[in-house]
Amino acid sequence: MSHDLNPTTIGIGLLGCGTVGGSLVELLDARHDEIQRRTGIDLRIVRVAVRDTSTPRPGVASELLVDDPRAAIDHVDVDLVVETMGGIDGTLELVDAALGAGKPVVTANKALLAAHGPRLHEAAARGGVDLALEASVAAGIPLIRPLRESLVGEDISRVMGILNGTTNYILSQMTEHGAGYADALADAQALGYAEADPTADVGGHDAAAKAAIIATLAFGASVTSSDVHTEGITTITSEDIALAGRLGYAIKLLGIVERGADGRVAARVHPAMVPETHPLATVRDSFNAVFVEGAGVDQLMFYGRGAGGHPTAAMVLGDVIDAAINLRSGTARSVGPLPPADIRPIDELSSAYYVSLDARDEPGVLAAIAQVFGERGVSIRSMEQEGLGDQARLVFITHQATESDLQATLEDLRGLDAVKNIGQMLRVIEA
Amino acid sequence: MSHDLNPTTIGIGLLGCGTVGGSLVELLDARHDEIQRRTGIDLRIVRVAVRDTSTPRPGVASELLVDDPRAAIDHVDVDLVVETMGGIDGTLELVDAALGAGKPVVTANKALLAAHGPRLHEAAARGGVDLALEASVAAGIPLIRPLRESLVGEDISRVMGILNGTTNYILSQMTEHGAGYADALADAQALGYAEADPTADVGGHDAAAKAAIIATLAFGASVTSSDVHTEGITTITSEDIALAGRLGYAIKLLGIVERGADGRVAARVHPAMVPETHPLATVRDSFNAVFVEGAGVDQLMFYGRGAGGHPTAAMVLGDVIDAAINLRSGTARSVGPLPPADIRPIDELSSAYYVSLDARDEPGVLAAIAQVFGERGVSIRSMEQEGLGDQARLVFITHQATESDLQATLEDLRGLDAVKNIGQMLRVIEA
Repeated sequence: MSHDLNPTTIGIGLLGCGTVGGSLVELLDARHDEIQRRTGIDLRIVRVAVRDTSTPRPGVASELLVDDPRAAIDHVDVDLVVETMGGIDGTLELVDAALGAGKPVVTANKALLAAHGPRLHEAAARGGVDLALEASVAAGIPLIRPLRESLVGEDISRVMGILNGTTNYILSQMTEHGAGYADALADAQALGYAEADPTADVGGHDAAAKAAIIATLAFGASVTSSDVHTEGITTITSEDIALAGRLGYAIKLLGIVERGADGRVAARVHPAMVPETHPLATVRDSFNAVFVEGAGVDQLMFYGRGAGGHPTAAMVLGDVIDAAINLRSGTARSVGPLPPADIRPIDELSSAYYVSLDARDEPGVLAAIAQVFGERGVSIRSMEQEGLGDQARLVFITHQATESDLQATLEDLRGLDAVKNIGQMLRVIEA
Repeated sequence: MSHDLNPTTIGIGLLGCGTVGGSLVELLDARHDEIQRRTGIDLRIVRVAVRDTSTPRPGVASELLVDDPRAAIDHVDVDLVVETMGGIDGTLELVDAALGAGKPVVTANKALLAAHGPRLHEAAARGGVDLALEASVAAGIPLIRPLRESLVGEDISRVMGILNGTTNYILSQMTEHGAGYADALADAQALGYAEADPTADVGGHDAAAKAAIIATLAFGASVTSSDVHTEGITTITSEDIALAGRLGYAIKLLGIVERGADGRVAARVHPAMVPETHPLATVRDSFNAVFVEGAGVDQLMFYGRGAGGHPTAAMVLGDVIDAAINLRSGTARSVGPLPPADIRPIDELSSAYYVSLDARDEPGVLAAIAQVFGERGVSIRSMEQEGLGDQARLVFITHQATESDLQATLEDLRGLDAVKNIGQMLRVIEA
């Protein structure tokens, strides 16, 4: 049963040769023979589309370089296209063209998928080829394939993930070294974890794109970035983190997607209080992790690198091999029909909440505050006073309440004379 | 692109209807329509083979019950066989027969796979059908598919797993509540985690079967249970755990498979000292976790339920759907040729070691002991004395040494007058 005798050659057209593309070339070179031994497939890079063909690319013969991406798709020996160029405009048309030409596409482009996933999945189904996207979410972690395949029969109720390594690095630095947000961000930038303009990471937008992709595959219904309620970590202070720690929680930026008994899907990205005994609380540094809850599997977690050339390229290569095997046998795996998800708005979220506020140190203040919570039907689980006198800060944790009731409570509290300032509101994950 | 209009009916022959089989029936009933919506496949249970057909099985019409397993394989409407009966003798022939008849087999039978995996994979390849085994290792965790597919291009150097929930429960109880081994085992038995005869779990044999399956798939070469060096947890005391904790380690029963630069494969199951900062150290209760290290992916971890009817059935169902999709398209995924692995014997292991021993409280004793380590080329990284006088216990952690040198050191130490007793030897995982 040796595969070596008659290997099937599969030609790859590579779009882009930056960090991920370059790592893929390197990895493919190192693993080519072992892959052929195990699968009988001889993977060859046929064309590499780059902006500047005069820059030498290690491991790529100069005659393979082209500056027209279409040339790397349309070449007669290109059987399969790997898109590592990024971007949405222009890239969408290229991916569409490849799928339309019956060439499977492997991509790590989360922005493209979060904006146009359903259209591209449909194009793949029409072309009868694979659209593979393992590296688009939690790049170095095999998550998409388990979601699409192992768990397709599972009734997934919720997926919660630490989906952005930059913000997890920043929050870890703040937690472990007491660093302020600005210092931790500067540190992340110096290490190359954060961009000069860190908005996509710290504003939660990168995580929101990944949450949309996860929701689409977990629930078999189309969810796009614009369906995801998104908050970032820019308002989190080292004091918030210290207070959370004293209460037994870590603050993590989570992407959460869930489906209720009514079939509606909710997707949100925001910082949250995670109990220290929860597996997600111990995910440190720039690691990512995705926690899945379902009726059958109970609890699952996938942990690993969320970025980086090598981890991303490793998952891209897994997809390439898979698509190549399917191509050899003339099959493809579509994700099935993707009707638009019925989205539950954030107002209808039911959660426990953490609220910190600065109040005047006067008799009757606590009663007045408690009355506001009570009038809005928000029940207080615990209250602590941190500090004394004019420096006193009140910290509340509520029982389950709806987001709209909680927001109305905050609005009312802002109107109270006794409340000087609302410090922070965070949703609390139950253990 | 709706799948609903022309569903493909796939008939299932179920062998065994115990905890896992019963949960599968239940899960399939609950998820049938959603699976059909997403995949276009109408899964139907055609025959269920049980020992006693007169016992009613919830969710199974009595006319589907047969007492001859061959009847559940050979029935003309059975397209796919799910084996949940367990055992090796007899079961091997049934699985072989199904594969030979071109019917894919889904099984969670780790003992069967660890003993006869290569033969069955070959039978599947010859029959042109799938042999799917997601639930055989870390039952409720999607691990096998990522290993076989996402990571087939990856140069995996090591996989370390907490592969047995019973022993992890026992060790967690000893760690968190200071329980003794016997009490923790009795507790696990009372909860149904451990069998009346707990040998397979506490002796490490269950974990060894799983380690063999992982090694086979991670390295693409056949490894069987008999290749796995196996030690259990029966000699671990609460004192060992307390001492390890003071040094910053947790004691876990690990299955470890690795491949060296020379291509040789080593597989072993034994209790080990895991640094408290390592993700495996925080895996508590009866949860399982598998930690994968590779050149591209760096570090990955998969975490979840290692046993239980529902988690196991969820993974079996994922395999059933996958095999059904492949059957519809007339394809199958073989694991490729499986030459026997070249096994590195345990004697050649290079590891750091923890050694505790009771020595006489006399001048010159430490020098004599240190000299024995030195003569065998085992370098001491740290030494601590716990307790005083005749109750004193010496605890050593070594630098990297070979197993044979360490064993020779222990043998020499036993011969020293100054050494009253060797307490414990444990391999130490580096952070």
